Amino acid sequence: MNKLLNFNIFLNDHGDLNVLGKLAKIVLILVSIWFITNVVDKIIDKAISNKKLTKLYTNDKRINTVAGILKKTVKIILYFIGSMIILEMFNINTTSILATAGIGGLAVGFGAQSLVKDLITGFFILSEDQYAIGDYVKIGDYEGIVEELGLRVTKLRDFTGDLHIIPNSSIQIVSNRTRGSMRAMVKVSVSYDENIDRVVKILEDVCLDIKKNNTLIVEGPTILGVTDLGEYKVDITIIAKSQPMEQWAVEREIRKKVKEAFDKENIEIPYPKGIIYGGSEK
Amino acid sequence: MNKLLNFNIFLNDHGDLNVLGKLAKIVLILVSIWFITNVVDKIIDKAISNKKLTKLYTNDKRINTVAGILKKTVKIILYFIGSMIILEMFNINTTSILATAGIGGLAVGFGAQSLVKDLITGFFILSEDQYAIGDYVKIGDYEGIVEELGLRVTKLRDFTGDLHIIPNSSIQIVSNRTRGSMRAMVKVSVSYDENIDRVVKILEDVCLDIKKNNTLIVEGPTILGVTDLGEYKVDITIIAKSQPMEQWAVEREIRKKVKEAFDKENIEIPYPKGIIYGGSEK
Amino acid sequence: MNKLLNFNIFLNDHGDLNVLGKLAKIVLILVSIWFITNVVDKIIDKAISNKKLTKLYTNDKRINTVAGILKKTVKIILYFIGSMIILEMFNINTTSILATAGIGGLAVGFGAQSLVKDLITGFFILSEDQYAIGDYVKIGDYEGIVEELGLRVTKLRDFTGDLHIIPNSSIQIVSNRTRGSMRAMVKVSVSYDENIDRVVKILEDVCLDIKKNNTLIVEGPTILGVTDLGEYKVDITIIAKSQPMEQWAVEREIRKKVKEAFDKENIEIPYPKGIIYGGSEK
Amino acid sequence: MNKLLNFNIFLNDHGDLNVLGKLAKIVLILVSIWFITNVVDKIIDKAISNKKLTKLYTNDKRINTVAGILKKTVKIILYFIGSMIILEMFNINTTSILATAGIGGLAVGFGAQSLVKDLITGFFILSEDQYAIGDYVKIGDYEGIVEELGLRVTKLRDFTGDLHIIPNSSIQIVSNRTRGSMRAMVKVSVSYDENIDRVVKILEDVCLDIKKNNTLIVEGPTILGVTDLGEYKVDITIIAKSQPMEQWAVEREIRKKVKEAFDKENIEIPYPKGIIYGGSEK
Amino acid sequence: MNKLLNFNIFLNDHGDLNVLGKLAKIVLILVSIWFITNVVDKIIDKAISNKKLTKLYTNDKRINTVAGILKKTVKIILYFIGSMIILEMFNINTTSILATAGIGGLAVGFGAQSLVKDLITGFFILSEDQYAIGDYVKIGDYEGIVEELGLRVTKLRDFTGDLHIIPNSSIQIVSNRTRGSMRAMVKVSVSYDENIDRVVKILEDVCLDIKKNNTLIVEGPTILGVTDLGEYKVDITIIAKSQPMEQWAVEREIRKKVKEAFDKENIEIPYPKGIIYGGSEK
Amino acid sequence: MNKLLNFNIFLNDHGDLNVLGKLAKIVLILVSIWFITNVVDKIIDKAISNKKLTKLYTNDKRINTVAGILKKTVKIILYFIGSMIILEMFNINTTSILATAGIGGLAVGFGAQSLVKDLITGFFILSEDQYAIGDYVKIGDYEGIVEELGLRVTKLRDFTGDLHIIPNSSIQIVSNRTRGSMRAMVKVSVSYDENIDRVVKILEDVCLDIKKNNTLIVEGPTILGVTDLGEYKVDITIIAKSQPMEQWAVEREIRKKVKEAFDKENIEIPYPKGIIYGGSEK
Amino acid sequence: MNKLLNFNIFLNDHGDLNVLGKLAKIVLILVSIWFITNVVDKIIDKAISNKKLTKLYTNDKRINTVAGILKKTVKIILYFIGSMIILEMFNINTTSILATAGIGGLAVGFGAQSLVKDLITGFFILSEDQYAIGDYVKIGDYEGIVEELGLRVTKLRDFTGDLHIIPNSSIQIVSNRTRGSMRAMVKVSVSYDENIDRVVKILEDVCLDIKKNNTLIVEGPTILGVTDLGEYKVDITIIAKSQPMEQWAVEREIRKKVKEAFDKENIEIPYPKGIIYGGSEK
Repeated sequence: MNKLLNFNIFLNDHGDLNVLGKLAKIVLILVSIWFITNVVDKIIDKAISNKKLTKLYTNDKRINTVAGILKKTVKIILYFIGSMIILEMFNINTTSILATAGIGGLAVGFGAQSLVKDLITGFFILSEDQYAIGDYVKIGDYEGIVEELGLRVTKLRDFTGDLHIIPNSSIQIVSNRTRGSMRAMVKVSVSYDENIDRVVKILEDVCLDIKKNNTLIVEGPTILGVTDLGEYKVDITIIAKSQPMEQWAVEREIRKKVKEAFDKENIEIPYPKGIIYGGSEK
Repeated sequence: MNKLLNFNIFLNDHGDLNVLGKLAKIVLILVSIWFITNVVDKIIDKAISNKKLTKLYTNDKRINTVAGILKKTVKIILYFIGSMIILEMFNINTTSILATAGIGGLAVGFGAQSLVKDLITGFFILSEDQYAIGDYVKIGDYEGIVEELGLRVTKLRDFTGDLHIIPNSSIQIVSNRTRGSMRAMVKVSVSYDENIDRVVKILEDVCLDIKKNNTLIVEGPTILGVTDLGEYKVDITIIAKSQPMEQWAVEREIRKKVKEAFDKENIEIPYPKGIIYGGSEK
Repeated sequence: MNKLLNFNIFLNDHGDLNVLGKLAKIVLILVSIWFITNVVDKIIDKAISNKKLTKLYTNDKRINTVAGILKKTVKIILYFIGSMIILEMFNINTTSILATAGIGGLAVGFGAQSLVKDLITGFFILSEDQYAIGDYVKIGDYEGIVEELGLRVTKLRDFTGDLHIIPNSSIQIVSNRTRGSMRAMVKVSVSYDENIDRVVKILEDVCLDIKKNNTLIVEGPTILGVTDLGEYKVDITIIAKSQPMEQWAVEREIRKKVKEAFDKENIEIPYPKGIIYGGSEK
Repeated sequence: MNKLLNFNIFLNDHGDLNVLGKLAKIVLILVSIWFITNVVDKIIDKAISNKKLTKLYTNDKRINTVAGILKKTVKIILYFIGSMIILEMFNINTTSILATAGIGGLAVGFGAQSLVKDLITGFFILSEDQYAIGDYVKIGDYEGIVEELGLRVTKLRDFTGDLHIIPNSSIQIVSNRTRGSMRAMVKVSVSYDENIDRVVKILEDVCLDIKKNNTLIVEGPTILGVTDLGEYKVDITIIAKSQPMEQWAVEREIRKKVKEAFDKENIEIPYPKGIIYGGSEK
Repeated sequence: MNKLLNFNIFLNDHGDLNVLGKLAKIVLILVSIWFITNVVDKIIDKAISNKKLTKLYTNDKRINTVAGILKKTVKIILYFIGSMIILEMFNINTTSILATAGIGGLAVGFGAQSLVKDLITGFFILSEDQYAIGDYVKIGDYEGIVEELGLRVTKLRDFTGDLHIIPNSSIQIVSNRTRGSMRAMVKVSVSYDENIDRVVKILEDVCLDIKKNNTLIVEGPTILGVTDLGEYKVDITIIAKSQPMEQWAVEREIRKKVKEAFDKENIEIPYPKGIIYGGSEK
Repeated sequence: MNKLLNFNIFLNDHGDLNVLGKLAKIVLILVSIWFITNVVDKIIDKAISNKKLTKLYTNDKRINTVAGILKKTVKIILYFIGSMIILEMFNINTTSILATAGIGGLAVGFGAQSLVKDLITGFFILSEDQYAIGDYVKIGDYEGIVEELGLRVTKLRDFTGDLHIIPNSSIQIVSNRTRGSMRAMVKVSVSYDENIDRVVKILEDVCLDIKKNNTLIVEGPTILGVTDLGEYKVDITIIAKSQPMEQWAVEREIRKKVKEAFDKENIEIPYPKGIIYGGSEK
Repeated sequence: MNKLLNFNIFLNDHGDLNVLGKLAKIVLILVSIWFITNVVDKIIDKAISNKKLTKLYTNDKRINTVAGILKKTVKIILYFIGSMIILEMFNINTTSILATAGIGGLAVGFGAQSLVKDLITGFFILSEDQYAIGDYVKIGDYEGIVEELGLRVTKLRDFTGDLHIIPNSSIQIVSNRTRGSMRAMVKVSVSYDENIDRVVKILEDVCLDIKKNNTLIVEGPTILGVTDLGEYKVDITIIAKSQPMEQWAVEREIRKKVKEAFDKENIEIPYPKGIIYGGSEK
């Protein structure tokens, strides 16, 4: 019975597999590969029809292409492994085949590094909710409204109309400009001849007026004070907090109101000034 | 029969292959290599005549050269693997040969890294349809109309006439300027002495006039408001959305119309202004 | 008894495991994997409910997602190792499987490098207390108040309202602006025609006045002296030390006071000066 | 006979090779090395006399030196491998020798990486016909006419007379300026006081005149329109398409003709303008 | 007795360890691990209480945390090694476990690279005494007084009050400004109309005066000579050597003294000069 | 006799080497090492006295030092390999020694990478004759006359007198300025009020005059035409081709001759021009 | 006797070492380690007291610390190797220990890479005599007089007094400014109204005068000619060759002499010139 348990009909006198045993083993390996490829195909198909992913990739055709390539790659790798095991069984040294495939695999692996980095960074952007579709963000030197947010690329629509397509691996630091209220800042310049207190008084009236009528403003506008003593002008800065994406509209309104108030109150416009001595002897 | 199943005529007394067996094995290996190279050649030939690829590479001669090199490389690698297996069979230690080939292979692999990256990036640009032939795109510091879009390189025709040949591995962030309507933006400067409301009124008439007659415009033109209080001028910005590649024509038209309207309405041109005090004592 | 100790019922005549022995071993391996996954799950669950971590990540849902992925990854790796051991037991050469998995693992490992660096840098920032929530810091080109401080990312709220999301691996040199008192510095320019001693006297009065009334100031303000002999002006610098984040308010106050004192004392404003010779012969 | 087939006179009692067998094997190895080096030498010699290569490297002496070094390197590597196999035969452990040689080989391999990259990039430039001898190209910050185009370096002759020697591995993006017609662009500035329509009329006459007489022009010249409203001038842009390398001559002709037309028609030259208020009280 | 020496009671008939022997070996391994962890813990504890280190890290709590982590890491590694040895003993193939751990270890190792570099650079800064606490140094773009100098980070206190926290691996070139006397340099500009010899005479008097009264000066001040013939001024440079960190005070004193001497001696201030031809025909 | 051929007196009963055999083998190894070191020393000595190399390195002492170090390194490596083989012979596992040496070797190898790159680049510069001693070249940001050209470094003598020592691995793109004739280019500016045809006539006379008398000129000088319509001047460009290193002298001569011709012909010097409106109401 | 030669008292029946044999082997290993550490210590001690090294590192204490660390490192490595060999002897699988140590070693090795590069670069700087103590050199953006020149760092004393500490691995291109005579260059500007020949005559007199009296000058001063035709001035350049570090003194002297000669000869100072048209209608 002990012999039976060891399937002796598959063994030759040296305790190794005989031809029958080898054939049985080959069949077993092929069946296993067929089984695993089927399971992997099922997993990929299920992942595609997954809710979250479909939210990201609305394009049906593109995802099917990717899935097809993925399935083929898995199949090729599995059959390669299977044939290696079978060759070993017939005492054929596969070291040189594995070494060749390994060097090729390393070259592909290094080349595909940034693809892996794309996916990892993409996963973190999504899971940490760094930005969502519709947010206005700045990534490196590029900014715009997020139009598509995938595992591999992020697409930004710039105000200029450009569509920036950014692989996620190129994304390092993200500046999200839609999380919380934004600052509007206007620098107002007046001549050195003006009285600062009087100017501040006029600006305060402007600020009060804007605060009342503008519903986009969250906080302020406030007058910070004298922010620079320039060559021929004194800078006074006004800041306010507005709803996101509305800071520029608020700044434009403040500028117009200040210009009109200064016109009315006769505040001198600080044109560049200079003193010229006439040298008569030339 | 058990003995027959183990092909004993190919074995010597120690259970190893005898000369006959070895010869049989060598023949088997050579036949396998011949068979695999034929299959690979067929696959390459089929891939070349594939529709999609021919769309990309219209140049027949170039693709045949590449295919020829590919086939030769595969043949050399297979015969190298075959001779390694045969040498092992005769108990010749191939470690040193494999090590030498491995180091050479690694050096080539590292050098070829960017080639692999070319192909991977190229594949994603194509499958994600990041840009198509005829699109106006900006890649890094280079911009132009896409003239050729291959797996290894992208060719851009600049407005200057330059043909930029960009290996796909050098492509990181792509700004596509033909996906959606583009923004035309004109900054108009007026003197501090002008009344802002009157200027805006004149500009609105200009905008209305353009909107009626220009079919390239998708949206606008709109007056944003006071975008800067400069040293001796006030900036007012006009924006519009046009069909792609037409934004510059729209900007030129707005500029011309604004200039003519200002001439007619006697709006002061904001030449640089300054105040000079004469120092008499020098 | 010696035989019993060696569990001979599991061995065949060659001293190897028989079918019974192999089955026993497989069961043992599966039980071990089940046991280790359970232990790892417990450790992860305990780490999540740990006080320190919850202080950092207030978002419950996000941490559960991460924990789920971690548990699944550990399970997959353990079952992979288990099946490798079982395959070896049946004399199936796993070299090719391990090599394939190894190259895949290396690719993922390289891609995940920056994730590891994120965590290591994050750990040191936390344990060395480089900055805390609420601090005003500058990291590279980005600055703002620390709003969130995690193992993987740091979030800064800029004065402009932007939320900068910085992966910790991008953090090299940190400039913390809330550790210790900050310097306020105002450069005052006067004409060459003024007497330096008289100007310094006036500025000293201003400084004394500010020192008395401003509670935000820690030290100074002090007059450094003549810091530049410019083209048409002499620069005198005033510095003070204030409580963190109040340096700008202190600077604004000094500027306003100096402007008013100079107005009162009739100190000449150093407008640009020049000498022009009139060339009559053109 | 079975014994004969196994060459028993070369074996000792343990089935291993005896001294005679070893000697035979050594002779066999040396003969193989001698044969392979001869074959490699033939291949190198044939490659050198190959037509395509001689077209590239006209310098006979240089290619012979390179071929000599290549042959020597192959010979050294083959004899190294041969001696390793012989040492193994005498049971001398070569691990330490191989490890030493391997580290040395890796160091050389890393150093030679850019050489491999030179050749691969060079091959693609040639096979994709990115540029040919005589083309005017821009590579990075360097531009000039291609004077030599080899597998390892590209030589550009700058207009300044400099000969830029560029290793192909330093070549990323190539801008070829001889493929297709080039753009000539002249920006013409006029005073705000001029009537735009009148100016455009004069420029159109100039363009017509040039179009008739200049055979270097492929398309245009055309007047684009008002491309900038500057501080004290209005910019109008003229573009044309010329034969490659002739765009600068076309631009110079347009400039001269425009200057002469403006002189004739009394169009005001837009010298910088400014408004100065005299401050009397200083 | 020979048998006794070979502990035959632990061996089975095949000369391998029996169950008893294996149990004994397991106990031995566990005892060794327990012993080594204890020794390592002692070494860490001793290192912490070492004088030199305590001088660097005054913060007791922080060092205890680090020590705790170090001890835990060592313990986990040792138990991992122990279990690997035990698994091997029962003929369980650990290749796949080691490969998995190895790839994980490599990923961590690459990520931790900069940590190792931190420590090595830190060690050299300390042992070569490149700078000490209190020195004023410049590292890359950051400068300040060294406030803390550890094995991993260096902390600089900038004059602005910022605390720069610099990981030692980011430190390349250090410019120490407290080793030796520093140079004070003042550039004095005079009109072309002045006689150089007379100006130099006046400056020499100023220098002599300063040399007598200022104890911060180590050498000089000396007049270098005419260092530039500018557009409308001649530059004369004065240099001095002062005690470290006092160079700015010395410069300020020289500037003030020069200004006063020039006022007294009626040396012309070199305001920008120009010649204007009036074009009457416009 | 078969036994004799197998040197049985050196073998024990198990067919392994006995003590006598081992001793013989050790002696053989040591003799081989002594022989190889001698051969390597001879090769190094011969290479040093080689003609080509001595042409490069005229400094005898320096090359002897390098040769000495090389010989010592080879000796140490050979003795290390020898002792490893001997240790293996006595069944001492050398894996740990080799691993330690391997890691050390890798660290040194990585560090020495740029040394290997120095030599490879140096070899190509020499064999491709990219530049020779006495050539005036530009390498990156450095330029000068090549003073020494070795396998590891290139030394350039700048016009400023600086001696730039450049390791060959830092050399990427070389601009050789002594291969072929160089371009001299002078930009001549005239007022808008001048007649272009008249100016060109005068310049042509100047060019003819220079062409006759200057033997350094290879081609030209030629008048290109109107190369810019500036704010208040028209630019006309003259180019010539001169012998290498003489382009600056040619440019200086053209400039002087043009200045004198313009003085004689009363061509207006294009001083900056402007139009000033006086604002009376301030 | 054959048995005696094989030391059979140390072997058991299977031909392996018995307990006695193992003990003997352990003793042998420990003695070898003790011996090698002693030899290494001697070599280190001898190297320290070596003449050349002491010339570089004058600081005795620092070198002793380094030597101590080196000795300890060697000792730890040797005992690690020893214990590995002993563990193997008792059939304990050391793969996992070696793998762990290997990964740790690799991490340290990568971190220590720049240390190795420091030493290799340092060695070449010394052996090639790129610069010596007292030379004035420029390395990257840093320049100064070499104050210390070691195997790991180079210390430069800047003219500002800063001590730049530069690790040798950061040294790429060295510009030595003390090898050969240096160039002094003064650019002299004159008005367009001056006669060039007369100006050159005056400058030649100045040059002759300086040549006679200044012993620091090696060659010249010479007048190059008209080096620029500027907007309102003509540039003439004078160059001279001086002893190293004296070029600035020579330049200052030339400048002073030229200024005085121009004053005497009434050469016009080329103040900026311009033509202003008065626009009356504003």
